[in-house]
Amino acid sequence: MRDQGRSGCPINLTLEVIGDRWSLIVLRDMMFGNRRHFRELLAGSEEGIASNILAARLKHLQAVGLVTRTPDPDHKQKATYSLTEPAIRLLPVIAEMSAWGLAHQPVTPDLAIRAQLLQDGGHPLLEAFMAELRHLHLGAPKPARSVLAELTRAFLAARAAQQA
Amino acid sequence: MRDQGRSGCPINLTLEVIGDRWSLIVLRDMMFGNRRHFRELLAGSEEGIASNILAARLKHLQAVGLVTRTPDPDHKQKATYSLTEPAIRLLPVIAEMSAWGLAHQPVTPDLAIRAQLLQDGGHPLLEAFMAELRHLHLGAPKPARSVLAELTRAFLAARAAQQA
Repeated sequence: MRDQGRSGCPINLTLEVIGDRWSLIVLRDMMFGNRRHFRELLAGSEEGIASNILAARLKHLQAVGLVTRTPDPDHKQKATYSLTEPAIRLLPVIAEMSAWGLAHQPVTPDLAIRAQLLQDGGHPLLEAFMAELRHLHLGAPKPARSVLAELTRAFLAARAAQQA
Repeated sequence: MRDQGRSGCPINLTLEVIGDRWSLIVLRDMMFGNRRHFRELLAGSEEGIASNILAARLKHLQAVGLVTRTPDPDHKQKATYSLTEPAIRLLPVIAEMSAWGLAHQPVTPDLAIRAQLLQDGGHPLLEAFMAELRHLHLGAPKPARSVLAELTRAFLAARAAQQA
């Protein structure tokens, strides 16, 4: 007999891994905010993630093979979290969610700018961003283009314009 | 002060709407299985969705504007559920989840075939599928191509081969 809630459908299997909101929020912050430490992920969260939820989600992401944790021998609190290759390959899923949110939800202007760049950049931008994430998280060679710098620059300019 | 758990980020706003596993499972079954009635969604579920969860998810999907419900005047149990335009536009998100699951999870062969066709078909297939969903759910003209028929045929052939 089939287990309740399980099937071999690729959409279902993906949802079993990332089908809770906070896991994807944590991956988003690691990707777009380059946040690698617990404190950064906690303090920088736009959604004010609670400490116990963040700890549980980081454990879950390690258990399903999307995040690895490298302890700092000198500071127990300073472990570094890295994305794995399968996690980096979730970028197209997250980019489609971003485009959908931009089109159908009340997105804040300063946060819309990155979504717009992501959408306009299409496949080449996603490939360049994944290459950059492989450099930052997996020690691959540094690519010439920094999508993270492009997105961050645009975000900071939009936030400054909004506050002017 | 910001509400805990809320932000104007497009990724977060999308997750607020579809960031629970069962809502996306229900949308998947309406899209790929053309299931439009409560009983069909319940009985046909690969994951064995529970009746109370299905009812709650259909209510949620109506509340967030992704599904509409048309009562049948003669049979209270036979209401028809339809996807809205924003729901149909979630197809690219679901397609990227499908591609990721196919690459990184232990997908069942008969369920892999649709995911493979979806991936190989790329943007033109997604556009044709969305046009067909607009016909089935929103009364738009019937398109020449039926992606649903193509996917269903391939799925049934794969299932027959698996059982042979």
